[in-house]
Amino acid sequence: MRIVITGGCGFLGRRVAMKLLAEGSALGPVDELVLFDNALPALPLPEDKRVRVVTGDIADRATVAQLIAPGTDAVFHLAAIVSGQAEADPDLGYRVNLDGTRAVLDACRALGSQPRLIFASSLAVYGGALPPEVGEETALMPQSSYGTQKAIGELLVNDYSRKGFVDGRALRLPTVVVRPGLPNRAASTFASSMIREPLTGRDAVCPVTPETVMALASPRRIVAGLVHALGLPGEAFGATRVMQLPGFSVSVGDMAAAMRRAGGEAAHARLRWQPDAQIQAIVGSWPRALAAPRAEALGFGRDRDIDEVVQAFIEDDMALQKTLVA
Amino acid sequence: MRIVITGGCGFLGRRVAMKLLAEGSALGPVDELVLFDNALPALPLPEDKRVRVVTGDIADRATVAQLIAPGTDAVFHLAAIVSGQAEADPDLGYRVNLDGTRAVLDACRALGSQPRLIFASSLAVYGGALPPEVGEETALMPQSSYGTQKAIGELLVNDYSRKGFVDGRALRLPTVVVRPGLPNRAASTFASSMIREPLTGRDAVCPVTPETVMALASPRRIVAGLVHALGLPGEAFGATRVMQLPGFSVSVGDMAAAMRRAGGEAAHARLRWQPDAQIQAIVGSWPRALAAPRAEALGFGRDRDIDEVVQAFIEDDMALQKTLVA
Repeated sequence: MRIVITGGCGFLGRRVAMKLLAEGSALGPVDELVLFDNALPALPLPEDKRVRVVTGDIADRATVAQLIAPGTDAVFHLAAIVSGQAEADPDLGYRVNLDGTRAVLDACRALGSQPRLIFASSLAVYGGALPPEVGEETALMPQSSYGTQKAIGELLVNDYSRKGFVDGRALRLPTVVVRPGLPNRAASTFASSMIREPLTGRDAVCPVTPETVMALASPRRIVAGLVHALGLPGEAFGATRVMQLPGFSVSVGDMAAAMRRAGGEAAHARLRWQPDAQIQAIVGSWPRALAAPRAEALGFGRDRDIDEVVQAFIEDDMALQKTLVA
Repeated sequence: MRIVITGGCGFLGRRVAMKLLAEGSALGPVDELVLFDNALPALPLPEDKRVRVVTGDIADRATVAQLIAPGTDAVFHLAAIVSGQAEADPDLGYRVNLDGTRAVLDACRALGSQPRLIFASSLAVYGGALPPEVGEETALMPQSSYGTQKAIGELLVNDYSRKGFVDGRALRLPTVVVRPGLPNRAASTFASSMIREPLTGRDAVCPVTPETVMALASPRRIVAGLVHALGLPGEAFGATRVMQLPGFSVSVGDMAAAMRRAGGEAAHARLRWQPDAQIQAIVGSWPRALAAPRAEALGFGRDRDIDEVVQAFIEDDMALQKTLVA
C-alpha cells in the first residue's frame, strides 16, 4: 500500500501516519507513506523508512499529480486553511480549500484505479436555525468561507465517487479537543486551550459562558475514525459518501470541571473566564449535539465523556506538549 | 443600468431580456443589455439598440472579466450545461457549471461595487429519501453532476454575498414547463414535449406513468421570478441567499388531460405512452412538492394550475414554436 496524507505534518495527519505505521491498514501492509504539507514539520515525525515528507502547494496541479503518483492506493486529504484564516484571507482559503481539493480529486481520477479518498469535513457546514441534533439530514447553511469550502468538498467527493473517479468518503469531524500545540486561528481554539494550557502550567482564557454546549471528539477518537473509514467498503456508505462522525455533547463548565479533576486547584486557578461576545456568538451558532446513526452502525465510536478525553490528552500528548512550549 | 445575462441567447435568458427591455428593471431604466452565450442565437432576439450580443467561453476568466466590465449593475447567470450533457461529459460540465460560475463571481467581485447577481439553481440539488415537500430546510443530496454543480454554485453565491463581494441571490427553479424549442438532453424534456409537440401538430412520447407527480412552473412565471429577484434588497433574503421558488404539483396524467382540453382529440391522439424505466426512476427521484414560504412572503408567485400553464404557452410561444419547426 502506498498512502498519501495531505496536511501530513499537521496535528491530525501526523497521528494518522503514526497509527498506520504502527498498526497497518485494513487494506494491507503500508509500504510507503507520503506526508505532504506546505512546510516542514514542526512536530517530530516517526523515524520509519516507509515515511517520506514532501512539501509544496496543494493547489498546484502539477505538484499534486506528482504526489498522487501511479501506485497510490489511498489518500487522506486533511490539508486545509483553518476557519479564521480562510475568513481573513478569502483568496488563500479558496485556493487551498477548494482548488486544492479539486487538484487532489483530479489527481486521484487520473490514476484510473479509483483510489480510496478520505476527506476531512467539518461542523462548519451547518448553520442558521439548527435542529437539536444535526446530521446528514440537516440542510447545509455554512456561515463562513471555511464551512462553504468544506461543504463544496463534500459535494465533490460524493459526485466523483458516484462517477467512479475515486472511492471517496467525506467525514464531518466534531470539534477536536484536546488539540496539542499552540492556539490557532480557529474560533474553537479555546476549547483545547482551556484544558491543555492549565494542565501544562500555563494560563488560559475561556471566552464563552460555562453553559455553552459543544459537540466534541478526542484526537484519539478522530484518528481512529479516519483510519477506520479507510477500511470500509464504499457500498457501506449507501446513498451519500458524506457522513457525520459521532461526538459527545458537554458544557464548557463541565470541561473546566474535568480539567480541575485532572489537574487540581493549581491548574484550575490558571483558567480565567473572560466573555467575548463575538466568539460566544460564533460558538453559539454551532451544533450542540450530533446525530450519527449511520456512522455508529458502521463502527465509528464516540468518547465516553470529557474525563476520558482529558485522560487521552494526558496519555497521548502531555509529554509532547511540554517539549513544544519548553 | 448595465445588465449582463449569461446564457442570454437561451430560452430563459432571451425572455428575461425581453421583459427587462419592455418593462425596465426595479432598479432603474435599462441602458445596456449584454446577452452572453457560447453561440449566436437560434431564437430571434428583440431589435433594440440597447441590446448587445457577445459570444465566448464562460469559463475563460479574461472573457468574463471583459464581459462584466466596470459599470455593470447586475448579472443574471443562467449559462449552464444541462443535466444529461453534464453527466455524459463531466469535464465540460465542471468547466462550464463550476469554473464558469466562479469566473462570473470573481468578475463581479473585481468590480468592487457589489453588483446584483441572480443565479439559476435547480431542483437537481435535492435527492435521496425526500420529505413530502422540499425547500431550503432540506439537505442537499444531488444525484447528478449537474445537481452537484448547482449546489456548489448556490454555496458560492451565498458566501460571496456574505463577504460583500456580490449582492447575490440563488434561486432554485422548479421544472420549467412548457419549454419552447426542441427536446434537449435533460431528463425532464418530455414534460414540455408532451404538451408542446401535440399542440403544434407533432407526435410525442411520454416515458413515465400518468400517476407520476412533478413540481412545475411556467416560463412566464420563472422569468417574472428572475426579474422580481433583481429588485429585492439583499437583506430581504435573511440568513441565506438561497431560495426555493414556488411551483405547483401536478400528475403527468393531468398534464396530458390539460393538453387535450386545449388541443382536442387530434392533439391527444399524438401522445403515446411508452414507459422508460430509466427516466421513470430519475423523475421518481425528484421532488413532488415544493415548500417556498420565504419566496411567497417576498412576492414570488406560482401558476394556478396546468391549464393556466398550457394557456401561457399558447399565448407566449406557440407562434414562435411553429416557426422553429417549420
